[in-house]
Amino acid sequence: MSKDNIAINAIRFLGVDAINKANSGHPGIVLGAAPMSYALFKEEIKLNPKNWKWFDRDRFILSAGHGSGLLYSLYHLIGFDISIDDLKNFRQIGNTPGHPEYGYTEGVETTSGPLGQGISNAVGMAIAESHLGAKFNKPNYNIFDHYTYVLCGDGDLQEGVALEAVSLAGHLGLGKLIVLFDSNDVQLDGPTNMATSEDIAAKFKAMNWDYHLVEDGNDIKAVHNAIKKAKSCTTKPSLIEVKTIIGEGVSYEGTAKTHGAPVGEAERANAAKYFKWDYKPFEVPQEAYDMFNNSIVSRGEKLNKEHDELLKNYKKDYPQDYELLQQYLENKPILDFDKYQKLITKPVDATRNVSGIVLNELQKEYPFIIGGSADLTGSTKAKGADGNYMPDHLLGRNINYGVREHAMAAINNGIALHGGLKVFGGAFFVFSDYCKPSIRLSALMKLPSIYVFTHDTVAVGEDGPTHQPIEQLTGLRSIPHLNVLRPADANETIASWKLAIESVNTPHVLVLTRQNVTNLEGTNLEGVKRGAYVVSKENSKLDGILLAAGSEVELAVNAQKVLLSEGIDVRVVSMPSHYLFEKQSTKYQEEVLPNVKTLAIEAGSSMSWYKYTKNVFGLDTFGVSAPGSVAMNHYGFNTEEVVKRFKQIK
Amino acid sequence: MSKDNIAINAIRFLGVDAINKANSGHPGIVLGAAPMSYALFKEEIKLNPKNWKWFDRDRFILSAGHGSGLLYSLYHLIGFDISIDDLKNFRQIGNTPGHPEYGYTEGVETTSGPLGQGISNAVGMAIAESHLGAKFNKPNYNIFDHYTYVLCGDGDLQEGVALEAVSLAGHLGLGKLIVLFDSNDVQLDGPTNMATSEDIAAKFKAMNWDYHLVEDGNDIKAVHNAIKKAKSCTTKPSLIEVKTIIGEGVSYEGTAKTHGAPVGEAERANAAKYFKWDYKPFEVPQEAYDMFNNSIVSRGEKLNKEHDELLKNYKKDYPQDYELLQQYLENKPILDFDKYQKLITKPVDATRNVSGIVLNELQKEYPFIIGGSADLTGSTKAKGADGNYMPDHLLGRNINYGVREHAMAAINNGIALHGGLKVFGGAFFVFSDYCKPSIRLSALMKLPSIYVFTHDTVAVGEDGPTHQPIEQLTGLRSIPHLNVLRPADANETIASWKLAIESVNTPHVLVLTRQNVTNLEGTNLEGVKRGAYVVSKENSKLDGILLAAGSEVELAVNAQKVLLSEGIDVRVVSMPSHYLFEKQSTKYQEEVLPNVKTLAIEAGSSMSWYKYTKNVFGLDTFGVSAPGSVAMNHYGFNTEEVVKRFKQIK
Repeated sequence: MSKDNIAINAIRFLGVDAINKANSGHPGIVLGAAPMSYALFKEEIKLNPKNWKWFDRDRFILSAGHGSGLLYSLYHLIGFDISIDDLKNFRQIGNTPGHPEYGYTEGVETTSGPLGQGISNAVGMAIAESHLGAKFNKPNYNIFDHYTYVLCGDGDLQEGVALEAVSLAGHLGLGKLIVLFDSNDVQLDGPTNMATSEDIAAKFKAMNWDYHLVEDGNDIKAVHNAIKKAKSCTTKPSLIEVKTIIGEGVSYEGTAKTHGAPVGEAERANAAKYFKWDYKPFEVPQEAYDMFNNSIVSRGEKLNKEHDELLKNYKKDYPQDYELLQQYLENKPILDFDKYQKLITKPVDATRNVSGIVLNELQKEYPFIIGGSADLTGSTKAKGADGNYMPDHLLGRNINYGVREHAMAAINNGIALHGGLKVFGGAFFVFSDYCKPSIRLSALMKLPSIYVFTHDTVAVGEDGPTHQPIEQLTGLRSIPHLNVLRPADANETIASWKLAIESVNTPHVLVLTRQNVTNLEGTNLEGVKRGAYVVSKENSKLDGILLAAGSEVELAVNAQKVLLSEGIDVRVVSMPSHYLFEKQSTKYQEEVLPNVKTLAIEAGSSMSWYKYTKNVFGLDTFGVSAPGSVAMNHYGFNTEEVVKRFKQIK
Repeated sequence: MSKDNIAINAIRFLGVDAINKANSGHPGIVLGAAPMSYALFKEEIKLNPKNWKWFDRDRFILSAGHGSGLLYSLYHLIGFDISIDDLKNFRQIGNTPGHPEYGYTEGVETTSGPLGQGISNAVGMAIAESHLGAKFNKPNYNIFDHYTYVLCGDGDLQEGVALEAVSLAGHLGLGKLIVLFDSNDVQLDGPTNMATSEDIAAKFKAMNWDYHLVEDGNDIKAVHNAIKKAKSCTTKPSLIEVKTIIGEGVSYEGTAKTHGAPVGEAERANAAKYFKWDYKPFEVPQEAYDMFNNSIVSRGEKLNKEHDELLKNYKKDYPQDYELLQQYLENKPILDFDKYQKLITKPVDATRNVSGIVLNELQKEYPFIIGGSADLTGSTKAKGADGNYMPDHLLGRNINYGVREHAMAAINNGIALHGGLKVFGGAFFVFSDYCKPSIRLSALMKLPSIYVFTHDTVAVGEDGPTHQPIEQLTGLRSIPHLNVLRPADANETIASWKLAIESVNTPHVLVLTRQNVTNLEGTNLEGVKRGAYVVSKENSKLDGILLAAGSEVELAVNAQKVLLSEGIDVRVVSMPSHYLFEKQSTKYQEEVLPNVKTLAIEAGSSMSWYKYTKNVFGLDTFGVSAPGSVAMNHYGFNTEEVVKRFKQIK
């Protein structure tokens, strides 16, 4: 057996053995896609297993995340921190989870598994690389110069999020994005021709992609040649379609049955015979390790060393750029609250406008902020600086995502994962629904992505129920590890931006108004940091509490006055972030919300408020098309109704 | 001015005037796309305004829902129930909301506005038409023989959901689906070439679409010719790209500024001069009405009459088919609970398996049930009967949606809207996230779509956090008018299916287990109907309540026994549907959940339970990759922990 085949079979059988041991997993892709993965890793990929976080490494994204068995085997063989015991512990609590989980396992660049996400993350990584390269590279100094490789399957290319991202990638001419498509003609429910009959080559070419076909996935030379051709095309992303046999080597190879169930002992024996593999489960011949050590490992170390040298000289020749580079890599913007407060001159304004002012100033201060909106910058005010990011203007910091909310979120996750940039994306709040799977992944991966969602209640007005959020606040607040901020006014909006922009490992969602709100006296940074706080104290005795968020805080303050005029003395508590309030001490929580009559007020689903009071004035029906103030009144969101409802509490 | 132009201008200016009056709306598409709409309506479309619900009418979907001004003007002119006063009341509370809302306005076939949804609904309508045609048409009896027309914009074709649906439409060869693409090279943030540079013709051809280009959108003859060509292509859906000028006639025509803001008085005058339109706002010359009366209106009446005749003779020649047709049109399946209970023989089984058994039986009884899963029938057990729906087997009732969850949901909304069929779609519960925008529309439109979501908690196991739902139950429960059912066992699963399949205007989400659960003694249909009920009574005194849903009900029953053995006498309440429980009388609610120590237990986000008790044992962090029972234990979902937590309640 050739040494190449020893290495390939080592990948194959470590994967199969791990899956058999776990009695759970996806062997089909391991057996079919091992050769192309090997070709990529042996010949091309730039990774230093001894320093895997090296910022100019090639990124490798297993978008078909169910192929984790393949990934961990490969990573074990190249010397990442995955032992044979870890492989034996596959899919148990530990560092080899069922799907690749960012932060759990050395070398894993993103959490994948929900199909379509990984390839979309990769588009973001390629954007980041090209932007940073344009910013820092100098003649003979390619500080940023890496590829983003993806291994994806048929399922990835059926998902809408991927189709959005792929379309944008072609538009943006991301020449260093190379996708290996494991084309095995089989998906979970059977042959792919039951669900699709596209001409993939023509489709990708129509989207400005470079396309190559490898007819035999076991032909690693052909795979390598295709990768070389893909690299030579510098103006377009490349799709390399590699024909493989899913589950190759077992008796039912080429069928959906190999996709998602362990092959078992007997079929392991069949495959071993087919591939002439004489080793016991988890046994790896030294030659296999040698093949990786002598190729990717030694190459990676060498390239990393050379890059270190390059950086040293860059520091001498371009000291200012080098210093700026450190700022990018450190990526720690700070928002001076007092300074930003002075930027706000209007006593009454929509929080989306305030957000726009803050973001514009932040982008002046910090050149490493990048982002944009899904074709809505005029409405969201979430627009990047320095012009549009385009192939002929890679320095642009405004990304025109198009009407592709989902890809925007997934691409931004990729930018955040890449490092060196702080990223934001904007849309109408109701269309956060379109981004939901990627928002969840921001939270799961603890990425500091920033979402700017505007038009936050039925006060959206005339666009009607399809554009008026109701359940979105509850939906997002229930996602673990996601800081959803609904600021009441300008002060709280600045504070929210401070938390978002300074965040290191928490994604933030800013939920902003379309309509004007008054900048209130009692709102402040310290309060926002604690999630909820008293914005307007009771006068002398505490008859109750009006608890609100966003535009309803002003409503509560107005109602407080009326109540006081009737001899009822309440305080107003603003709760911009349930997430942060939950992190406070019980003592603080009880100080802010002592056990008295409390009415929670929010023009949206009531569900998230019952933890704090049983009296909730929410909105649990869909909205109505009418001017915003009419719509709000239609549902009773006015002072009279709030006063009435508080007085009705028994 | 030609009579055609009088009619076209009547559409244009009624739209512009309505938007000006409302001081809100989207005039760009009204001015640009009026001619193509007129060409379609005058020459081709089959609609009877005096009987618009005629089941064999052509469907017309304004996927670019922001063009509602265009739609309402057109509908007014052809005699639908939209008066000039209604147009003057545009975007106020009434029957002319800002975006087309199904159920609010005569002639509106679907709620559109969230981009990409309408065109995806249309794919479902075309599937329904072809399937029903295959079922009922006989030589000389084309009972079902209509087209589904779509008017979409650039934004629609950037959305992932549309890209999924379009891919599937090509695969399924939906020859009677014809999409007019208002190609005006402008989107909200500017020229479309800022966000996309695809070769749309090549892309659609690669997806098996027929493609035609109309270079001048004002050339209604060319538009009509393209539609005729599209109709002559019977094996592929057709895209007709019509080049137009957005906001044609105003001084800033062809720019994004015309998209979403009223043109105002002065620009209305400019446009009127440009189009030689001498009429005052909301004034319509009789010739305009005449043009519509003499074309679409009279044609529609005639065709409807002919179809009535056809049906009469069909009844004579094919009495059994005619009777079956009535069943389809009535679409009222009934599930005999006792009969279905007998199908369940295992005392312990996963609710997804029980669901599969029930669904299979239902499909035997009712041939008008259609659906499938997003490439997961083996796991969800949600598979259609009679083989795969394909161009060469239109009678198949299993739709292979592919890995296209979002399109599945949107297509199913379209099938439900079409009428004649009952539809379901299945996926892993965590991937309900991908469907969210379409689930919301099911609820907003009050469609009886059925969602079968399996693998409902961290008990999913080895696939890990990306596949383990946490916040999904809270997220879906917070959507208005959506009945989310999480059955505890086989009995409740059958009951849930009964509610879902018999529903007329409520979408249902069935949330089912991957793992086995015990069929409990106390579960029953009447209880499920009321949303929550006592499944296991207290012994003699009521020391408290264990409140749970889904697989956690069994856990509660087990804990109840242990508590009783320690002298603590609690009842167990199962709450399969928060939605239904909220509809019960206060008396019933207080009977089931009196004010005693109550612990709610669910292996998911705690948020939705605080309305019922302040003591919630939920799961507010992401999951872990490990075997299902290990994962559940990892988070304490076992008898000991439940007992402990109940006893800790003060």
